[in-house]
Amino acid sequence: MRKRRLMCLLAAAAWAASTYGAEPLPSWNDGAAKESILRFVSEATQEASPGYVPPADRIAVFDNDGTLWAEQPIYFQLRFALDQVHLLAPGHPEWKDKEPFASLLKGDLKGALAGGERGLMEIMMATHAGTTTEEFETRVKEWLATAKHPETGLPYTQMVYQPMLELLDYLRANGFKTFIVSGGGIEFMRPWTEAVYGIPPEQVIGSSIKTRFEMRDGNPVLLRLPEIDFIDDKEGKPVGIHQYIGRRPIAAFGNSDGDLQMLQWTAARNAPSFCLYVRHTDAEREWAYDRESSIGRLDKGLDEALARGWTIVSMKDDWKVIYPPKKN
Amino acid sequence: MRKRRLMCLLAAAAWAASTYGAEPLPSWNDGAAKESILRFVSEATQEASPGYVPPADRIAVFDNDGTLWAEQPIYFQLRFALDQVHLLAPGHPEWKDKEPFASLLKGDLKGALAGGERGLMEIMMATHAGTTTEEFETRVKEWLATAKHPETGLPYTQMVYQPMLELLDYLRANGFKTFIVSGGGIEFMRPWTEAVYGIPPEQVIGSSIKTRFEMRDGNPVLLRLPEIDFIDDKEGKPVGIHQYIGRRPIAAFGNSDGDLQMLQWTAARNAPSFCLYVRHTDAEREWAYDRESSIGRLDKGLDEALARGWTIVSMKDDWKVIYPPKKN
Repeated sequence: MRKRRLMCLLAAAAWAASTYGAEPLPSWNDGAAKESILRFVSEATQEASPGYVPPADRIAVFDNDGTLWAEQPIYFQLRFALDQVHLLAPGHPEWKDKEPFASLLKGDLKGALAGGERGLMEIMMATHAGTTTEEFETRVKEWLATAKHPETGLPYTQMVYQPMLELLDYLRANGFKTFIVSGGGIEFMRPWTEAVYGIPPEQVIGSSIKTRFEMRDGNPVLLRLPEIDFIDDKEGKPVGIHQYIGRRPIAAFGNSDGDLQMLQWTAARNAPSFCLYVRHTDAEREWAYDRESSIGRLDKGLDEALARGWTIVSMKDDWKVIYPPKKN
Repeated sequence: MRKRRLMCLLAAAAWAASTYGAEPLPSWNDGAAKESILRFVSEATQEASPGYVPPADRIAVFDNDGTLWAEQPIYFQLRFALDQVHLLAPGHPEWKDKEPFASLLKGDLKGALAGGERGLMEIMMATHAGTTTEEFETRVKEWLATAKHPETGLPYTQMVYQPMLELLDYLRANGFKTFIVSGGGIEFMRPWTEAVYGIPPEQVIGSSIKTRFEMRDGNPVLLRLPEIDFIDDKEGKPVGIHQYIGRRPIAAFGNSDGDLQMLQWTAARNAPSFCLYVRHTDAEREWAYDRESSIGRLDKGLDEALARGWTIVSMKDDWKVIYPPKKN
């Protein structure tokens, strides 16, 4: 009987250690950034604290490109679109003589993108519209299963940031509901965010094209139309947050000027809030870019973060590792 | 020591009874409708059953008007709009000579609505747009706190259906995530659905107007614009479900033809699903209407439900009570 009781005690102690005792954010170096996160969460979760937030209001929003996974040298969704052009080309003989497809199929990416936004939009619509929602989901999954990043050789879903995965887990363990609020396509993200980030589709907000409900041989489908529905970037981010979540976040995480309005909206909450910018400062382990970059530019946002005392994370100094350990 | 152990056992037994032993759906009469609900939930939650559904996929969608609360003699949101016209009239002297407002302010509802959809839209936009999102939320809350239904004398939030409240609770107790998918305004519902239905704002989908992010004296606001963004009705319901939830429901609950496409979309799931129509059959305790009604018409939907064997609830026969017990 005594032995049994001892076993129970040991099991309980082990459980308590794994739940409460484990050091949170193990891939974060000790420093101001990590400290500010721990302090905010501690205050938000202690009922006696002036910063206490009831669990239902613990909404945290995360940008995706450059905040949860990498975004260089081009947004991964654009890489998907370019790969789809090659894949779909046999069904589109007309593309051989039509820009921007003709250049792209010849391997001339620069020429293909020379047409600016209009050409880019043509590529996006040709590869993102015209299918049912289910067919598109299959395409995304098939691409992710095989595609590799041209510089790292890694599958794209392994180019997520280990310290941010830990942060997501840590917030959820403290009663936060975590959302993605990304300029990226909502349907490009939803097929994999649950497995990779632990964020279910209904907590993913992104840019979208319109869909139409149709009956096909008595079977209902949603057809993806070549028409923009919503751009979830800059001023669109607070709009998207309000439309999808319907309450104001208490914490917001981004890496670029496109996230600034989301952080402003969060900071203007009538109670304590937390805003954090990830800075790409690590040319060796990732990429280093900020005020001058065409992708993920952080300029106005950096000024505002410095002026308002928002938390700024330096990937080089604050993160022990960038990506999760390789899976075999 | 023995007494203490006995107390523990008793406490545990009481807990087990309250959790597992209590009869579910106490306001439902025994019958085919109640039985079909219990059977579906039992199969969806038992791992050994062929109808088993993992918790993450247990998405249930509910129409609101006529399914969770009453909708006669006019939609409650329209009543809100009409009351707002009176409230806002002092700031709009021009309304005295402008239809549909002039008739409305004279108490001539029929005359005000004679202009059809265009007049109705003018009333909706005049009362729903032009404020910040926060101001609008305050207006809705203030109205609900004082407004009474002209026939029952009840506050509108007490004209929710007790059997449906029990159904929502029962589904959630079995791991379902419950969503509202309503033709009603998303921002008209969100201020009260959590308190009344236990459904948080981020699980409420509805019709919406556009909003714009703006800085006012350095403070960010979202301004409500007089421009339709999305109509969450008929073919719009599967579109809204896909846009907001991103996965297909396994159970859908409605009361009118406006819900038919939502039920079809749910029924076309590649696995067991559950579709239910509430029929307004109780002229004494509520209202009786179906194929001929201009509000909440149930005609094509009823034919399809009968043909496909969907569950049909008769309010008169299946429900012991309509509304929750009165609060004092």
